[in-house]
This record gives sequence, C-alpha cells and structure tokens, in this order.
Amino acid sequence: LQEQKILLKEKKVGKQSILFEKKPALLSAATVAGPKESLGPLATEFDRSYADTIIKEKSFEDAERHMMEEACYLALGKGGLTPDDIDFFIAGNLLNQIITSSFCARKLSIPYLGVFSACSTLTEGLALGAMLLEGGFAGHLLISTSSHNSTAERQYRYPTEYGYQKPGCAQWTVTGAGAVVLSSTGGGPRIEAATIGKVVDGGIKDPNSMGTAMSLAAADTIYNHFIDLEREPTYYDLIVTGDLGGIGKKANEDILARKGFEISSNYTDCGVLLYYPHQQVDAGGSGCACAALVFLGHFYKKMFKKELRKVLLVATGALHSPTSYLQGESIPTIAHAVSLES
Amino acid sequence: LQEQKILLKEKKVGKQSILFEKKPALLSAATVAGPKESLGPLATEFDRSYADTIIKEKSFEDAERHMMEEACYLALGKGGLTPDDIDFFIAGNLLNQIITSSFCARKLSIPYLGVFSACSTLTEGLALGAMLLEGGFAGHLLISTSSHNSTAERQYRYPTEYGYQKPGCAQWTVTGAGAVVLSSTGGGPRIEAATIGKVVDGGIKDPNSMGTAMSLAAADTIYNHFIDLEREPTYYDLIVTGDLGGIGKKANEDILARKGFEISSNYTDCGVLLYYPHQQVDAGGSGCACAALVFLGHFYKKMFKKELRKVLLVATGALHSPTSYLQGESIPTIAHAVSLES
Repeated sequence: LQEQKILLKEKKVGKQSILFEKKPALLSAATVAGPKESLGPLATEFDRSYADTIIKEKSFEDAERHMMEEACYLALGKGGLTPDDIDFFIAGNLLNQIITSSFCARKLSIPYLGVFSACSTLTEGLALGAMLLEGGFAGHLLISTSSHNSTAERQYRYPTEYGYQKPGCAQWTVTGAGAVVLSSTGGGPRIEAATIGKVVDGGIKDPNSMGTAMSLAAADTIYNHFIDLEREPTYYDLIVTGDLGGIGKKANEDILARKGFEISSNYTDCGVLLYYPHQQVDAGGSGCACAALVFLGHFYKKMFKKELRKVLLVATGALHSPTSYLQGESIPTIAHAVSLES
Repeated sequence: LQEQKILLKEKKVGKQSILFEKKPALLSAATVAGPKESLGPLATEFDRSYADTIIKEKSFEDAERHMMEEACYLALGKGGLTPDDIDFFIAGNLLNQIITSSFCARKLSIPYLGVFSACSTLTEGLALGAMLLEGGFAGHLLISTSSHNSTAERQYRYPTEYGYQKPGCAQWTVTGAGAVVLSSTGGGPRIEAATIGKVVDGGIKDPNSMGTAMSLAAADTIYNHFIDLEREPTYYDLIVTGDLGGIGKKANEDILARKGFEISSNYTDCGVLLYYPHQQVDAGGSGCACAALVFLGHFYKKMFKKELRKVLLVATGALHSPTSYLQGESIPTIAHAVSLES
C-alpha cells in the first residue's frame, strides 16, 4: 500500500496537505457587508454595504441570500465573466440545509457542489476548487459563502428579540457574503498549497466559547501544515485565521508555541480585525462571512498590490448543531488552510 | 475565453460532465440498515441489520451516527484498510449542520471534507472523490452518507409521536448508512464519467411531493449527461435514480421521453426497490441512505459479479429546509450522476 501511495499521490504531501503546480488564481472577488461591518475598521473595503440587515427583503434569510447572490454577480462582473463561463459553483453557509447557497445556485444556474464545514467553508471551497482546477476538471469556478447575524442567532441561539445577554467570550456572527472566481489561468493571488483539516474536539460544550473550541482545530491544521510542507511560521508574511476572535487567537498562539511554532509576530485573526472594540462584539466576529469579508475584502487586495506576498489563510469552523448541543455533545471543530502567494 | 477553456479543460465534456481516464475504483463498500429496510426485498444484501431504530444509543441522532461509523469501519475492513490509509473522508447527510458526518469524522480522524446536496450526497461525494483521485490528490478516499427516519421526521416534519397522516405521494425516509472506499487503483466497479447537477425548481411547494419535485432535477441531469457525452439510454445496462419513488420515477420517465430519450426499459429507482408494497411507505423510500443501501448493497455487488456492466447512478436531492418551506419558498432540487462500469 505504502509504495502504491507514494507512486500515485504526487500532489499530496504528508498526511493532510496538497502542493499545487499550476497554482490556480483568485481572479476576482467581491464582498457585501451588513451595517455593523460597514461601521468597522474595514468599512471602505467592501464592494457594497447595507445600512440595515433586512435590505428590503421579506426575511433575514432572504436578505442573506440577496447578499450572496450580489457578491457572486459582483465577483463575476469584476472578472469579466457571466454565470455561463463558470464550470462549477462551490458554496456553503451556516443555515440548515445550506439554503442560502442552494437558493443562490438556483438563481445562478451553474452546476453546483454544496459544501459545509461551518465557518471554514471558505477555505474548504478554495482547497476543493484548487484541486478541481489543477486536475483539469474546470477552467473557472465560483466560490461563495455567507452568514447573517439574525439568521444565525435565531437558528443557533435565541430570537434576538429576547435580548439574551452573552458572556464576554461569545462572538458576533458577521452579516455579509463573499464570492471569488478561481481560475486555472489569469492574474491574482494564487493557491500554492492547501491543508485539509481533521475534526478536533477538546470536549468544550459551551457554544459561547467557540473561539476556544476552534483554536484547537486551527492549531492542529497549522501545525500539520508546517510539518507536511516542512515550513516555519516565518515562511509567511501573514498567517490569518478565520474567526477565532480575541480569546481563540491567543489560545491558538499558545498551543502552537508549546508545539514549537512561534507565530505571534506575523499572525492575526479576521474576527479580531472586523470591528472596533466599542462595537460591542465581545470576543470578536464569527461566521462564514468573517473570513470572507476580511480576506476577500482586505488582504486579497493587499496581495494584488503585492503588499503581501505569502499568506496562510486558515478559516475555522464549529461543527455542532443546536440538536447536538442540547443532547449534551461537545463541539467538534475543523480548520482548512490555503497558502496563497502573489 | 472559449479558446482558453478548450485548452485547459481536457477532462470536462460539455456543460456539466467529466470524463475520467484513470477511472477510480469503488474498492469496497458496506451498508448498515434499519428495521424496516431489513424486512424489505433487499434484506439479505446489507452487511448489518438492526431490529430497532435506536440500537442502544441515547438518541436517534446517536443511532444514525452509530450506523455511519459502522458502515465506514466495515467498508475499510473489507478493503483491508484502516483510517490511516485514507487521505480524505468525504461525507454528508440530512441533519442540520450535517452532524452525523462531522461526528463520524471526529471518530475516524481522517482529514474531512463535508458536503451537502441532501439525498444526492452519495453521488456528489463519488463525483468529487473521483476528481480528487483522478487529479492525483489522493490514493484512497472514504465516502459515506446516512439518513434515519426518526431524525428526519422530527427535523423536517413532525415528531413521530404526533402520528401525522401523510398523503400517498409522500415517501418514507430510509434508516441506514452506506460507505465506500474509492481508490485510484484496485478492483471493483470504476467511475468513468460524472455529471454535476444544476439546481432545478419547478415551483412545487409541497414537501410531501418531493418525488415529483426531484424528478425535474433527475431528468435535467440525465438529459445533460446524454447530451454532454453523446450517449443514448441504451448505452447503459441500467439507469438508476436515488429516491424519486413511484410517482417521481414515472414523472422522470415522462419528462425524458418528451425530450427524446426513452429510458423506461432499463430504468429503475432505489426508492421503489427498497420496500415491499405492504410495508406502507406510500410512494417509496427517500433519504441519503436510500441510494446508499440500494446501490452499495445491491447493484454494486451485481457490478462486481459482472451481472451489470454499465450503470448510471443518479442520486436526487431536495434542497429546501423547514425554514424555507415555512417562508413560502418552493423546493429547489438537484441530481448528480456518476457512470460506473465493470
């Protein structure tokens, strides 16, 4: 078996990682942000900003879908493309049965691959997409993810009207959507490696402590990324996690330091960057749109301008459901990493 | 763009299809069935059968997870493999946040790619898996899906204790799980082509008419499969849909006949085959496990024995959620097809 593996898996490196030769490009990207996000430090970075969370739709779910559809069409437009030019649409989101993505796929009418890894959906999509392009199965892919504070609150927690008080370790689910066109050719930052995460569960049961729970997955994936590819943290200009928030970010740093990798000097987290402290988001932002808005809205542009050359993006997801929580289960978490260069 | 596309997408054929050269093999497969399934016409085909739906677990959700885990370990064992030999675990299921798959991935500790396309998850997994193997990104993959009547009923409809009476067009969600090891080498039926479905929505809003709703997606995917690959229905020994049931099967036949493809002579549906009429499943079986039990338990073995040489497997999924239904939305549907040969 081992010989067979070595023979066949020329692109797989180590236990969890892939190295790309052709390095698919992030040709164009777009972001659509909600009201709170549009008042934060990255306010000027988004392609569209809304002053309210329902944006003239009938429901928050419709508003989330509106945002994903808009992000998709904007990303296509920036790339000079139409849905017809796209081979596959890879998307996912937090809502039950990933309805935002599926209804968006209905509108786009592009062959559709639904994915789910909670808030690590963006990097799952990018990693899978890069494999499909590198493998010659597609020329252009559209990848999208979204979240909405009000749809997530009522699905995962309580109706917002209850005014439920959260502890300081809780995070604020980001309202917004991001979309990116991945291409086998063309300009833009390129995906040169990916590390697919394992599910990690430290026994944490408190859904208000997701940053801490997900820090274990982030640290596991980043550690295995370094081991698989024989890299040090300094290989990257920036390592950025998806939505660990302030507490999870610190935990991730600490775990990796104990494992021999000091990342604090070139490490940040999207959930820490998206809001000002006075915006009362407790430990920071979370949700699929957190990494989407901050990476695609902010760091992606810096990569385009070559202000950043090598970035490791590690979106992180908590894979529990309200049912598994109520049944006393702990929170399984995952993180997928993609290494980008420009 | 068009030239670029032609140049780069050597493996993509037409709008939605992929042709595989190396043709990844379904090395080993296993099925675990619930009580009703174990009293049906295929009772002797399953690797493990349970006489009740809770199988000594604390909840139906735990029981579903138990079945998926068992199917995975059985499939690995039949292939002479352990979780360590598997590069990626690709899985999905019907439950919110696909918890069955994610908790199973926690146990297996294999790098995990969560997917969701409702009851077409099996073929989404097979198609994606075949691309990852063909592209050289993996040597062995484990693909699994499951459903459970009691977890699905309470999530999508009513607690079973209510004794809700269903109309005759409703279907019975299958209790069970299936798992299959996909390999870049080795024996077993091989995946030689795949067609990725578009989301199709005929405006049907009744969640008790999912067979009819999904028949539109099945017909669309099968039609595009024939067009993309320039094939006729007679190319296949068997065309088998996932869970259209009696009503949806007839609708699918009728739509394709009107589009110029007469499939009725070599076409069947997993949801029609799984139960006896006296088992009171109304229009037939449904759920992710429907295609998994019938294809992996029954037709897969026939392919191994070369009693069937060419099979087109088209699992079908309804992508609505209880929320989208309650908000007055119609049911978006999808079908992914894989062409197998032995």
